[in-house]
Amino acid sequence: MADTQKLRKQETLALRKKHIGPSCKLFFKGDPLKIVRASGCYMYDEEGRRYLDCINNVCHVGHCHPHVVSAAMQQMAVLNTNCRFLHDNLVLYAERLTSLFPDKLSVCYFVNSGSEANDLAIRLARTHTGHRDVITLDHAYHGHVTSLIDISPYKFNHPGGEGKPDWVHVAPVADIYRGKYTDKNYTLEELATKYADEVRMLCEEATERSGGVSIFFAESMQSCGGQIVFPPGYLRQVYKHVHAAGGVCLADEVQVGFGRVGSHMWAFQTQGEDVVPDIVTLGKPMGNGHPVSAVITTREIAENFGATGMEYFNTFGGNPVSAAVANAVLDVIENEKLMEHAVMMGSYLKKEFNRLKEKHMMIGDVRGQGMFLGIDLVKDRETREPATAEAAFINKRLKEQYVLLSADGPYRNVLKFKSPLVFSMDDAKELVDKLDKLMTEMEMAEKTVLDKASVNESVSISSQQPQINRKSPSEIQVKV
Amino acid sequence: MADTQKLRKQETLALRKKHIGPSCKLFFKGDPLKIVRASGCYMYDEEGRRYLDCINNVCHVGHCHPHVVSAAMQQMAVLNTNCRFLHDNLVLYAERLTSLFPDKLSVCYFVNSGSEANDLAIRLARTHTGHRDVITLDHAYHGHVTSLIDISPYKFNHPGGEGKPDWVHVAPVADIYRGKYTDKNYTLEELATKYADEVRMLCEEATERSGGVSIFFAESMQSCGGQIVFPPGYLRQVYKHVHAAGGVCLADEVQVGFGRVGSHMWAFQTQGEDVVPDIVTLGKPMGNGHPVSAVITTREIAENFGATGMEYFNTFGGNPVSAAVANAVLDVIENEKLMEHAVMMGSYLKKEFNRLKEKHMMIGDVRGQGMFLGIDLVKDRETREPATAEAAFINKRLKEQYVLLSADGPYRNVLKFKSPLVFSMDDAKELVDKLDKLMTEMEMAEKTVLDKASVNESVSISSQQPQINRKSPSEIQVKV
Repeated sequence: MADTQKLRKQETLALRKKHIGPSCKLFFKGDPLKIVRASGCYMYDEEGRRYLDCINNVCHVGHCHPHVVSAAMQQMAVLNTNCRFLHDNLVLYAERLTSLFPDKLSVCYFVNSGSEANDLAIRLARTHTGHRDVITLDHAYHGHVTSLIDISPYKFNHPGGEGKPDWVHVAPVADIYRGKYTDKNYTLEELATKYADEVRMLCEEATERSGGVSIFFAESMQSCGGQIVFPPGYLRQVYKHVHAAGGVCLADEVQVGFGRVGSHMWAFQTQGEDVVPDIVTLGKPMGNGHPVSAVITTREIAENFGATGMEYFNTFGGNPVSAAVANAVLDVIENEKLMEHAVMMGSYLKKEFNRLKEKHMMIGDVRGQGMFLGIDLVKDRETREPATAEAAFINKRLKEQYVLLSADGPYRNVLKFKSPLVFSMDDAKELVDKLDKLMTEMEMAEKTVLDKASVNESVSISSQQPQINRKSPSEIQVKV
Repeated sequence: MADTQKLRKQETLALRKKHIGPSCKLFFKGDPLKIVRASGCYMYDEEGRRYLDCINNVCHVGHCHPHVVSAAMQQMAVLNTNCRFLHDNLVLYAERLTSLFPDKLSVCYFVNSGSEANDLAIRLARTHTGHRDVITLDHAYHGHVTSLIDISPYKFNHPGGEGKPDWVHVAPVADIYRGKYTDKNYTLEELATKYADEVRMLCEEATERSGGVSIFFAESMQSCGGQIVFPPGYLRQVYKHVHAAGGVCLADEVQVGFGRVGSHMWAFQTQGEDVVPDIVTLGKPMGNGHPVSAVITTREIAENFGATGMEYFNTFGGNPVSAAVANAVLDVIENEKLMEHAVMMGSYLKKEFNRLKEKHMMIGDVRGQGMFLGIDLVKDRETREPATAEAAFINKRLKEQYVLLSADGPYRNVLKFKSPLVFSMDDAKELVDKLDKLMTEMEMAEKTVLDKASVNESVSISSQQPQINRKSPSEIQVKV
């Protein structure tokens, strides 16, 4: 651990304030963490305190996995240049990667980030279809470059956003718990159709506006939107509508790909074997932290893009080091059977979260699969009013207990679990146990408040059913 | 060199055709190179043949420099995570990097590529100025994402391009040799003013169209445009005009930064100490091949961007490994005195290229400084008609002699020299010697053709002055 800490934490923070753009936010900004090393699912701060990492979906096979580090080291010492030269790493990785997809997805472009991948996907789709309009899902986030802010309601509808451009059409996200249509009124089958019909109507709107749709853009499970799992059959119907309108369909697997969902390598595959997107984008976990990402598409779309004559050159994209690192990540997923592990751990965690749901009324919904799970916190199970401040409070308190979790979704009330895949049974027990105790404490505190209120106001309140904190988010002062 | 070659070259090529998008072009596509290792200024193919690398402006301090590799290895094994946690590498590098700029450029954003940097720069400028219009230079290339294709005439005016959007204004590049105004008719001082006035007029045009200019975008020396060095005083006047119109000025140092020009760390500094852009973008050489890039700007622009409330999060940007690598690159530039070396080698090469110019009429112009040099090939020194096919022929023949050089510019007639900075005197002699012999051979061959023609047609042609090949590009079959 030699030389991992050169400055005192306050000095680091001061230099950061001086030289790093204020738009780059720290986690827990009231008391940010200084992390100096990490291994597996654990991060260590400057005092050697160990944090259980339940949020890092980039260091996918575990922080600093030796097999990945070793692959990077070996290649870095030998050659790191651009892909205008032939190199085995690039083509062997491309062959291996495409073998993990349905046959028609056979052509790759290697880039450096999910943003570069998603931007290129828009270019591919526009060239292929001749159309410009994009259909995106509400609350979606697809990246930080201009073209992706344009199609990310998570950005353009929030502070600093400028609303949607006219070529963007926003479909309600197929969130069966708190979306436009919910499981209160419809069966899953009906929900799939209801939400898919919304996309069909936007296809018509786009066709009316400009003659057609270029691309339907969606994460296969929506992450920033609140760990949303679409109802079965949804993507099948959507893809049919979009194809009928002349558009192509994209599966953004930047956050949910590479076996995170356990049952399948790619989350779109959970919607059925016959559900095949035309373009898939990959990112975060692909290099376990190394900047490498990719676009996978069909021969036809790639040929049409190539036929324009415009070269696509990405300086660092597909260099031998990035390819070696990405290849090593696949090795680890296979060798350590991390998908099987994700299935096992995911079902254990989901069962345990559901057990907590039976005890704690603040848990409105438990969803997801594999190592992509969400706990939707509510103030009231009937109204499903989001418990935003409670989520922030839980994350703050968990951090004080050395567990890193986050909250997201339009109301920031959904606890997001997306740890490295090497999360162990002991890790799971630690997380569940701490969550359980914390929720119990919150309920006890609330009960005390309510009991006092009932004495004061002579109102009878049932103590049978724990009540969650009824304060509005603005009343609870939580700094995270 | 264990295990650097897993496939036969033809197998590598076949897999590449199968799985890599056809828009990703190979160098020397008729007979591409398979490179398996590299060191310093040399690349080695699968047969162990050594190529002198005169084109790699990414592996800036030499391929696989052990100090850089070692820094990457050490950090990779300890921690690689995102910049939402405090880390010393990030802030110490930011402090060191900004110390290399004029005081007002004090705030950094770390990203993964020049494209991500330039895209973010547009966003910063638009937020800061409230304007949308961009002024760019003709033949410029600023990156591969949608927003940058829009401002890159090198892309939008070429095959597959869709022309310029209405918010983009293209100024003639201040190319004093073959631009709109040249040294045939004007002094350098007049040229600076003439070209700057073109930008002033576009400021007026933009203001008329939409109320103002957001940003003036230019490489400090234009690379893809043909190794263009602006006349002294040009940027000073341009920046004045753009500021007067409410816009900000960007120096794209992705290709020319980090001491390549020798005399200064940043190429914009060659235009005078008082010439200070508002935003600078960095890329290619920053990590010696590792994907790391940056935007540097003023506190005021950064604060205005932050004030919108929109977070800027870049998953891999500013991770501890990228920062360690970038820091090591600065170490090497300093420790090995590579800027001084670039001054010395650059002036030697320029002197030698000018010596060749005295011998070879096909050399119309020698320009640049440090390790950023261009040789503009002409069919006729008077008309300056570009010798496109000759440039392609030279690069093909040099490659057969194990020297890698490339051609660029709107006519692809400018030999581009942009080697790693560790290019040695022996390397320089090898390059100059091979260029010299090759040009002599070409002239001899041409002379033979002309002599025959003169006998056949009884036309007297002076043999005093070597004539360059008069065939048009399409007549000479050169596959590169």
